[in-house]
Amino acid sequence: MSVEALDEILHPQSVAVVGASANTRSWGYSYTHHLKEYGFRGKIYPVNPNHAEILGIKAYSSLRDIPGTVDYVISCIPAGDVPTMLAECAQKSVKAVHLYTARFSETGRKDAAELEQAILEQARKAGIRLIGPNCMGVYYPKHGLSFGYDLAKEPGPVGMLSQTGGGASGFVRQAARRGIRFSKVISYGNALDLNECDYLEYFDWDPETSVIAIYIEGPRDGQKFFDMLRRVALKKPVIIIKGGRGEAGTRVTASHTASLAGSMSAWEALVRQTGAIPAANLDEMADLAISFCLLPPFKGARVGIAGGGGGPSVLSADECEEAGLEVVALPAEIRQQLKNRGVEIWDWIGNPVDASIIGGFGVDVLDMLRMMALNENFDLLIGLINENVMMTLSQQDGMVMRMETTVEGYRRLKEETHKPLLAVIGDDCSGSDEYGNWSGKLISEARTNLIAAGIPFYPTIDRAASAARKVLDYYTYKDARTR
Amino acid sequence: MSVEALDEILHPQSVAVVGASANTRSWGYSYTHHLKEYGFRGKIYPVNPNHAEILGIKAYSSLRDIPGTVDYVISCIPAGDVPTMLAECAQKSVKAVHLYTARFSETGRKDAAELEQAILEQARKAGIRLIGPNCMGVYYPKHGLSFGYDLAKEPGPVGMLSQTGGGASGFVRQAARRGIRFSKVISYGNALDLNECDYLEYFDWDPETSVIAIYIEGPRDGQKFFDMLRRVALKKPVIIIKGGRGEAGTRVTASHTASLAGSMSAWEALVRQTGAIPAANLDEMADLAISFCLLPPFKGARVGIAGGGGGPSVLSADECEEAGLEVVALPAEIRQQLKNRGVEIWDWIGNPVDASIIGGFGVDVLDMLRMMALNENFDLLIGLINENVMMTLSQQDGMVMRMETTVEGYRRLKEETHKPLLAVIGDDCSGSDEYGNWSGKLISEARTNLIAAGIPFYPTIDRAASAARKVLDYYTYKDARTR
Repeated sequence: MSVEALDEILHPQSVAVVGASANTRSWGYSYTHHLKEYGFRGKIYPVNPNHAEILGIKAYSSLRDIPGTVDYVISCIPAGDVPTMLAECAQKSVKAVHLYTARFSETGRKDAAELEQAILEQARKAGIRLIGPNCMGVYYPKHGLSFGYDLAKEPGPVGMLSQTGGGASGFVRQAARRGIRFSKVISYGNALDLNECDYLEYFDWDPETSVIAIYIEGPRDGQKFFDMLRRVALKKPVIIIKGGRGEAGTRVTASHTASLAGSMSAWEALVRQTGAIPAANLDEMADLAISFCLLPPFKGARVGIAGGGGGPSVLSADECEEAGLEVVALPAEIRQQLKNRGVEIWDWIGNPVDASIIGGFGVDVLDMLRMMALNENFDLLIGLINENVMMTLSQQDGMVMRMETTVEGYRRLKEETHKPLLAVIGDDCSGSDEYGNWSGKLISEARTNLIAAGIPFYPTIDRAASAARKVLDYYTYKDARTR
Repeated sequence: MSVEALDEILHPQSVAVVGASANTRSWGYSYTHHLKEYGFRGKIYPVNPNHAEILGIKAYSSLRDIPGTVDYVISCIPAGDVPTMLAECAQKSVKAVHLYTARFSETGRKDAAELEQAILEQARKAGIRLIGPNCMGVYYPKHGLSFGYDLAKEPGPVGMLSQTGGGASGFVRQAARRGIRFSKVISYGNALDLNECDYLEYFDWDPETSVIAIYIEGPRDGQKFFDMLRRVALKKPVIIIKGGRGEAGTRVTASHTASLAGSMSAWEALVRQTGAIPAANLDEMADLAISFCLLPPFKGARVGIAGGGGGPSVLSADECEEAGLEVVALPAEIRQQLKNRGVEIWDWIGNPVDASIIGGFGVDVLDMLRMMALNENFDLLIGLINENVMMTLSQQDGMVMRMETTVEGYRRLKEETHKPLLAVIGDDCSGSDEYGNWSGKLISEARTNLIAAGIPFYPTIDRAASAARKVLDYYTYKDARTR
């Protein structure tokens, strides 16, 4: 399908929710609610024979009763009712149907798989394109489409195609808290008609998308998919999770999206050749997505680290090296600068900068980060924000002040030096006693301020280091191929 | 040193803080504060020539002026003043000195290293044992000793010896939120006198300790340490982090605790031979510590998983397999049980149990976990608690109810079946807008309830699976060696 035609499908002027419901726990209610809540500006037509209105919007007994045209249908009815609905869609010249409806081939049952094939043939004859079945459909906040109650309303640069709906909405939610926003997220389930290649080609073209994220269990057209991936990855970073990597996972993908997961070693080799960036899970995908959104391209692995105490500094060096970064020694020029400034421990400070030894010597973590940012021996910087903070300061006021100063300092550092800067700020993982207390609140505020400053943050040093290394590998690959 | 003698040192009846201060941001203030705050029942003697009292406690100009005996001294004075203080300690027959005081050999300077050696000789002649220097000393909440403001006051079964002070107090704090409590934590820095072997032997003996955690940069007596580790690990699980694994880390350990980190490959081989459990960082140490505290020993890797939606289920299977667990297919007996109960999708449900497909069929995640718990084909269970929850329920009340039911169900499952059960409950990682909202609060409450129920939880499936595999490996090793 052409990208322009798919773009038209993604910009409907009228949407009907077939199986719309007044039951607040149903999906027919949810999808109707979302259209209203996310500000969809076109016509909304709830379809339900038993209600005159749903959520204050006039409802219709059937698609046929709708007076105007219907561009896009969200189907929340049982599988067995889909053929009748599709016949009505054909009469109304509907362009596309999102089948939230599930229980087709993924059940492993012959009759369900046959029904799925019959539906495909019926749609093809009528010229209707299908998204799904067995999927959440489209989250496109800019156009007022959503598949979740608590997803961000502001758009952003990440486009996602996903063979998991729950995973996709979970990812949108979790990613938002890292500062990631989305152009469009398409959960496409069993990929009966439109498949991964259609969506990938679309995101390649889509001017609203600059970073692409993929969760896929099994491509419907593997050869075409990898060829396309190779081409797209040279233009935009493509982060890809393969679901169903082992024996059990493969067994499960069959019952999830009826995908044939295939051999993992072959998959890995193919992905490596395309320049796409593999991720093991949604947490890593968030790390990589925010890294590609916010970090400028960089060309070397030499990292400067600062902010942790003694042990955490040692471990940060270990974990950066294990992730493939080079924790270079503090350059002689910086030692000289420290000496010139009269810092008594100029010969003791190293990289990583141990925050617990420098207090009282007229130099702080931000000074050290700035010196490293301005020094050509460093390609990127990692700052550890809340390591050790609670230990070294006894008082709430002091810690509040220090945290605010730190994040503000990071903001200025980033603005003034343009050196890639990653922040590590741990999770609270609090219980009910700690919930709402000042230190957790402070960390939350720091995260919000980091997002506002455009500085990516990660819950642990190893995740920051691993993301940085994969970003570097991507730009190195791209550079070599496009020179 | 004998374990009984070290035990006596750890149970002082009188503690002097030399360098006690009224400056609330100083460590001399902090240590005095902690003795009072953590309920130390013996005599407390702040020592400072410029104050008549500190924190409402009578202060003394020098150790000599203290009327009674002094068992234990916490030194917060500069390095150069230590010899004079030690002379006074000798006069007062002090048994042990904790040198919070730093800037000795770890500075890399000759004069500082020489001072350190002189102090050691002086202490040996006087029969005074030293903890440190360059360390936080002892956190022993049961006896009223602490090195942090916000550490738990209740004791627990984990004993820790640590060559990082900041790391140790950070770990105590972070571990508490996972439900981990400590017998004693000893931060021992440069290990000038008492070293890792003294402390390890002590924890081996200590009836208050059943799980041992170690952060070490370089043992002072490697041969003895590994011999001891081999013996201790057969009795109690020993979790060990090596700080300074790579080139940069090794460079940093020198400036942190003046340790010679040595070859990592040799280290790894030696640790493997002892049966100790290696951890990469403090997060993994928390995962392992809570696992050993709460999971009963188990003898196989066959895991049942339930609670995630489609994609997260697939990924949970992948990550469990990658961590070395066996995600076995749902046994025929359970399918038959489902069929007998009239569950229409009895042949579609698998392991992992996809929570998104079973709604409305008269069986829920807890039912499935229970069936797996009672089935001999499963050695352990992993439940995914907050995956997918927010997506599938539109309303706060519903989610609150479901979360409460889930955790209560886990509690009963654990009590009634005794099958090892691990819970996965994600971090919020919230920004200031989300902080304090109902869903984060709900997750915090669930964590607190899991702790109360004695069920270990982990932020991600891969961390749960990896911890479970290491627990299994430990008991397998121990079983083979002690049969």
